[in-house]
Amino acid sequence: MSAVERVRRAYARIAAVDRPEVWIDLRPEAEAAAEAAGVDARVAAGERLPLAGTVCAVKGNIDVAGLPTTAGCPSYAYRPERDAPAVARLRAAGAVVLGTTNLDQFATGLVGTRSPYGAVRNAVDPGRISGGSSSGSAVAVALGLVDLALGTDTAGSGRVPAALNGVVGLKPTPGLVPTDGVVPACASLDCVSVFARTVDEAEAVLRLLADPAPAAPGRRPGPWRVAVPAADRLGVLADGWAAANAAAAGRLAAAGAELRDADLAPFDAAAALLYGGAFVAERYAAVGAFTDAAAGRGDPGLDPVVAGIVRAAGRVPAHRLFADRVELERLRAAALAELGDADALLLPTTTWHPTFAEVAADPVGANTRLGRFTNSANLLGLCAVAVPAGTVGGLPFGVMLVGPARTEERLAALARLLTAPPVRLAVFGAHLTGQPLNGQLAALGGRFVAEVRTAPEYRMYALDTLPPKPGLVRVAEGGASLPGELWELPAAGLGALLGALPPPMVLGPVRLADGSGAPGFLCEPAALAGAVDVTAAGGWAAHLASRTLSV
Amino acid sequence: MSAVERVRRAYARIAAVDRPEVWIDLRPEAEAAAEAAGVDARVAAGERLPLAGTVCAVKGNIDVAGLPTTAGCPSYAYRPERDAPAVARLRAAGAVVLGTTNLDQFATGLVGTRSPYGAVRNAVDPGRISGGSSSGSAVAVALGLVDLALGTDTAGSGRVPAALNGVVGLKPTPGLVPTDGVVPACASLDCVSVFARTVDEAEAVLRLLADPAPAAPGRRPGPWRVAVPAADRLGVLADGWAAANAAAAGRLAAAGAELRDADLAPFDAAAALLYGGAFVAERYAAVGAFTDAAAGRGDPGLDPVVAGIVRAAGRVPAHRLFADRVELERLRAAALAELGDADALLLPTTTWHPTFAEVAADPVGANTRLGRFTNSANLLGLCAVAVPAGTVGGLPFGVMLVGPARTEERLAALARLLTAPPVRLAVFGAHLTGQPLNGQLAALGGRFVAEVRTAPEYRMYALDTLPPKPGLVRVAEGGASLPGELWELPAAGLGALLGALPPPMVLGPVRLADGSGAPGFLCEPAALAGAVDVTAAGGWAAHLASRTLSV
Repeated sequence: MSAVERVRRAYARIAAVDRPEVWIDLRPEAEAAAEAAGVDARVAAGERLPLAGTVCAVKGNIDVAGLPTTAGCPSYAYRPERDAPAVARLRAAGAVVLGTTNLDQFATGLVGTRSPYGAVRNAVDPGRISGGSSSGSAVAVALGLVDLALGTDTAGSGRVPAALNGVVGLKPTPGLVPTDGVVPACASLDCVSVFARTVDEAEAVLRLLADPAPAAPGRRPGPWRVAVPAADRLGVLADGWAAANAAAAGRLAAAGAELRDADLAPFDAAAALLYGGAFVAERYAAVGAFTDAAAGRGDPGLDPVVAGIVRAAGRVPAHRLFADRVELERLRAAALAELGDADALLLPTTTWHPTFAEVAADPVGANTRLGRFTNSANLLGLCAVAVPAGTVGGLPFGVMLVGPARTEERLAALARLLTAPPVRLAVFGAHLTGQPLNGQLAALGGRFVAEVRTAPEYRMYALDTLPPKPGLVRVAEGGASLPGELWELPAAGLGALLGALPPPMVLGPVRLADGSGAPGFLCEPAALAGAVDVTAAGGWAAHLASRTLSV
Repeated sequence: MSAVERVRRAYARIAAVDRPEVWIDLRPEAEAAAEAAGVDARVAAGERLPLAGTVCAVKGNIDVAGLPTTAGCPSYAYRPERDAPAVARLRAAGAVVLGTTNLDQFATGLVGTRSPYGAVRNAVDPGRISGGSSSGSAVAVALGLVDLALGTDTAGSGRVPAALNGVVGLKPTPGLVPTDGVVPACASLDCVSVFARTVDEAEAVLRLLADPAPAAPGRRPGPWRVAVPAADRLGVLADGWAAANAAAAGRLAAAGAELRDADLAPFDAAAALLYGGAFVAERYAAVGAFTDAAAGRGDPGLDPVVAGIVRAAGRVPAHRLFADRVELERLRAAALAELGDADALLLPTTTWHPTFAEVAADPVGANTRLGRFTNSANLLGLCAVAVPAGTVGGLPFGVMLVGPARTEERLAALARLLTAPPVRLAVFGAHLTGQPLNGQLAALGGRFVAEVRTAPEYRMYALDTLPPKPGLVRVAEGGASLPGELWELPAAGLGALLGALPPPMVLGPVRLADGSGAPGFLCEPAALAGAVDVTAAGGWAAHLASRTLSV
């Protein structure tokens, strides 16, 4: 498919999902299409572009030439003269940037609610937070608006929203990807991170983004070794999350990994230093003078929680920073000793998934709970990858593999043991974009692939279910070609969907108009007795629209 | 000479010079002698000890097992369980530590006056400061009390007192010598430094102190290249110092070095950051809680200037530290660019040599002037060696060679071009230890070697000079063996002494009792007419003593 066509479909999908808060500046479609045409021309001229036509989004604190860099604060905005190196490398590889995404202001937060551009709703459950600070980037990938997105990660901003929206978040070793052209949160800790649907994609993109680096440390031969803290070391987790984490550990063990216990104490202590110690003062160094001035003039675009954190950080004394650095060195040695010769530490990426009301009730406390497992990685100089690991209560659950500096490839290989190859699923009714059960797909790690049509061999009935669903039936004669969507799900996700499928729905092979096929939603013949044939409406969405009009 | 004998002579000389403020804790002679006997036994058993019997002193902020570590503050003192690694390495090589030396409290100062153990008087002119903070260590070496001494250097504490007392001060690259067991000043900048009489000795000791390190950076082949800022870039210097610095540059040029100009702006800006920025807060991190408590209870052992600096450092905000680190990185790049491919930067070590009254009139301002050229080295990660470069107005003048990290050997080789091999000088009168002109010898870079006696072929006359001096004359018959001292001076120093010698004094060969010879003070025959023969007194000091008694 051409880059131009991929861009066209992306904009159609963006319009369909109606999540305007995902974006801060979405480029006009014509502009993106023109850029895509340029990519197509390069490919036609023989250039080998590893990301040719890949549509992507960039967090709003990273410079994209032609768009303002806002960092989530309208009055802070400036127009960069050039792309940040990370963006330039994506574009050089053929990617088309559709726009800049929403974020917790100044990348200060793990919630995704601290933005005058709107709180970003979760991809699966719009009543819950997206997580942040790379809220828009994570949700854009989870909803299939883009193929990949750049985020940044200081305390966990590239991992927490990955976990809460069911996508992969790869946070490289500090320093591996240049942070030039990034509005600093804590400049000495910030990382550019990658959101993608699969570990393979995230890893491939990281290779394009990274500076040349010394060879990764060697690995002792033999089976994978993974440190998995005992459940009682993990503290308070959302209901069912400890079991889900144990299940992820079990998948690694089933794949032959040796599991061992680990004490989280040095990781916890380092995590507590990030906001509880003096390191937070680097946020004041970055935007303190601006924030003081904006607060002084009552700037309505200043997020009050972020401004409070930044301004308080200006009062931390420097001697504490020296003391904290000494303490951090001690903790780093202890953490590495705790890792020992393990390839990685397995943890839940975060500890809970709050609603907007829960965050509003305790903005800082809710945030702190979200960062417990992520806060330490950059202080300790580690890399990490957050990957989907099923769902709990219908919401995405994610785990994180944390490893020593420069072990990104090792972590990716381990993460692949957690994620079987994805499978495809054709949907035609309540799981379509905009329909009530669509969120289930994202929750299962699903990814929108394309709009499709069935082969002209099907009829559609309105079933007596709640919510209303169509029954798709292949017929020998008089069939029509009906519209639907093709999604990609982790195999485990598809299994989970099948296991929870209520009658009369079934999953079975569906023939598509292009001659291919995919498993898709069909229904038991018994359900068709008395059901209304709605084939003539031309698809489920059209049927619902016509019904609304007729009321 | 045995270690025991060297220790005996050192204690005799310590008693003779009567500079009690040099020491904080001088070990009982018997204890040092016992340790020396142990060294002699090791040598007798066949051990090869590169520093066998070398007597040394250790700055009072470095742990020496058996002595309290005071850091110049009596109430801060603790008794370390073991030697600091730097001290342990000296002792392992056969050195005998005589005691701990005085310092500016908490190593905070470049003056040598900020100590409840007393202000340390300059080795040459007791009315002027010794410089600091390693005041006692520098003066101990300059007065020949010890062969070498350890200091520490954060802002210039290992170089300023070297310059003001006419000895060599070698400050290695930060991190090369372990600082464990050192009371931190600014822990991330502190270096253990070496005071010695010659560059060769200092370099040899550094090799014993240093951790294994990566190979030093390579040097472009060809002549030495030395950056020498134009005189108008050096700012206000003491009278005659610019010319003395130019003369040192001239010696390097005469030895074939290529000189080039350099802009000091990045070095000056980095130097200003040390106390004017946020880095000073590390001093509060080290001793701030102690200082606050001590000040609260009116501790008389707290130096008021140091306490003021430390306590103010507690109020510096952490965000400035982050900003200063960014600025410092910029300055480091600019400074290295300014050095370019030069082997070193040549500078006066300090800018002036104040009297005690001048320091008392402006304690902080006087200190700031002293540190202008030294303050930047550790912030910029550089190494430096301070070497004597003649005298100005009878006081030592020193220059400093500053080079990139790990170029200590290169700096030492360059420094040797500035310092011809030392020559020996026998003295018998006003230049003896305790006599009025003794300070001239230290000012010329002189080093006490040993007490000696002439061959039994000399007579001594009391000359009619001011101050009173003896005339030593070799006689064919009726000669006596008379006591004196053997000193070692830089060749340039001996030349300077000869050039300024007033009649009737002359320098000529003197035969010594052990069969060797050395140039020494004699006198013109004309001066003997009418002079009193004092040979029977048994030496000049004995003659003066008898005269005092007879008054």
